[in-house]
Amino acid sequence: MGRRAFALVLALALAVCVSPVERKCLLSGSWRSDTGCRMVVSILDKDNRFSGFYLPGPAAGNLELLTSPLEGSQQDTRLVPQPIFYFTVNWQLREAARTTVFLGQCYVDTNKEETLHALWLLREVADSPDEDWKATRIGTSIFTR
Amino acid sequence: MGRRAFALVLALALAVCVSPVERKCLLSGSWRSDTGCRMVVSILDKDNRFSGFYLPGPAAGNLELLTSPLEGSQQDTRLVPQPIFYFTVNWQLREAARTTVFLGQCYVDTNKEETLHALWLLREVADSPDEDWKATRIGTSIFTR
Amino acid sequence: MGRRAFALVLALALAVCVSPVERKCLLSGSWRSDTGCRMVVSILDKDNRFSGFYLPGPAAGNLELLTSPLEGSQQDTRLVPQPIFYFTVNWQLREAARTTVFLGQCYVDTNKEETLHALWLLREVADSPDEDWKATRIGTSIFTR
Amino acid sequence: MGRRAFALVLALALAVCVSPVERKCLLSGSWRSDTGCRMVVSILDKDNRFSGFYLPGPAAGNLELLTSPLEGSQQDTRLVPQPIFYFTVNWQLREAARTTVFLGQCYVDTNKEETLHALWLLREVADSPDEDWKATRIGTSIFTR
Repeated sequence: MGRRAFALVLALALAVCVSPVERKCLLSGSWRSDTGCRMVVSILDKDNRFSGFYLPGPAAGNLELLTSPLEGSQQDTRLVPQPIFYFTVNWQLREAARTTVFLGQCYVDTNKEETLHALWLLREVADSPDEDWKATRIGTSIFTR
Repeated sequence: MGRRAFALVLALALAVCVSPVERKCLLSGSWRSDTGCRMVVSILDKDNRFSGFYLPGPAAGNLELLTSPLEGSQQDTRLVPQPIFYFTVNWQLREAARTTVFLGQCYVDTNKEETLHALWLLREVADSPDEDWKATRIGTSIFTR
Repeated sequence: MGRRAFALVLALALAVCVSPVERKCLLSGSWRSDTGCRMVVSILDKDNRFSGFYLPGPAAGNLELLTSPLEGSQQDTRLVPQPIFYFTVNWQLREAARTTVFLGQCYVDTNKEETLHALWLLREVADSPDEDWKATRIGTSIFTR
Repeated sequence: MGRRAFALVLALALAVCVSPVERKCLLSGSWRSDTGCRMVVSILDKDNRFSGFYLPGPAAGNLELLTSPLEGSQQDTRLVPQPIFYFTVNWQLREAARTTVFLGQCYVDTNKEETLHALWLLREVADSPDEDWKATRIGTSIFTR
């Protein structure tokens, strides 16, 4: 057996050993929410930041909702295998400005299946502090690949 | 000084000593929120339940908001001097059904001043589970006498 | 065909006609949440109030959590087929008092399958208004039969 | 009157006209919350992003809470005089990772006094999706200069 074959076997062995540790959760890629929304998240930069797009599902009801940009950040998976993340969506609406923030955690199970559990706050612009009480909606989203 | 007079003085002395412990928080009475709403809460029944009325402030914006009935309950102040409470308001609206639940705690300071700190959820009727995501608003209220 | 048979046919015909209207959502009965909790809700009284029990799932983590009483109310299904409901759970804990309020809507689909979508607030007792900021947790629950 | 003087007068006239519009709300600077926390926000960059520091108040209770970095973004005040903003605080704790997102609006009154009204979500790391239900707390903050 040559040196090259040995290196290959060693690499495979390492891959097997390492894999349990490699159960890391990354937001990069495509996701679909339990309410039919989709999002595409970029590769993370060196500071664990990302950008992407959010596409509301048919349930959004408002036809004027367009694909909207998102940006956010997740914890470093070298420190935490199941990182907390947040991202913001600035809705591209014809009528008025709305912003959603998602705060969640990326879970990965023994089959390396990733799931995102998040709570979100959605805020509309209010005219004055007196109107502020009704500006914010709340809900949860679960995303899978 | 007879035995009776002594007993009276002792009782008064005890009452003075005991009074700091008597700093109990009860929802019964009139309250005003930090957003200008008012509410009137009935005397508690033997199960610590109450009913009353909620009057939205000028900030409510919707003229069709009328005085709405509330009902709720608080923890027994014999067990907890600063009880958790909740109450529900069924809004009397011309248009559509809305319900708010308040969940909070009644705090009492060294001057026996009571303050209510509460979070609330406000839900509108949705047509289907698909529309449910946008049904709920959230906020906080602080009430003082 | 006798009078009795005629009455039966009439009754069946009426039942068929009435059934689409009969898609009403009632909380009475047994439910299981998406997080493995179970609850049993009593028959509604004439004011649409109910009581019952809430049994936390294995996910609750705290072994000291016991079956806890709940009570609440739903909108009249003669007025709204998919009623808003709320209920409160007073947790029976060894350590400290906790209260959860659920606020949700009972949806019924074309197969008469009922689903409950709810947001909840969970409050622990705090020592003072200064500590109040950390007293409340939030989440969602979906219940099916 | 030379061309230069004319330009100056024109500029002053414009400034006077524009000033009512100039009631713009910027997050840059020092703020104090209604619960005694303080934060310092940097000058906004060309994309309306900012960074800064968050200092928990005495009410935080946990001595191990240190000054923590924040970063966020606000809407462009050329488009919206009272912009929606969000920012995230990554808590510098000895024990465990926690993240807060604030979502709010910057209001400015007729005296040019600015106030920030925000809701926040605070998330702790959970071990698994089963434990996720208890990971998130919620509250509000009002900040003044």
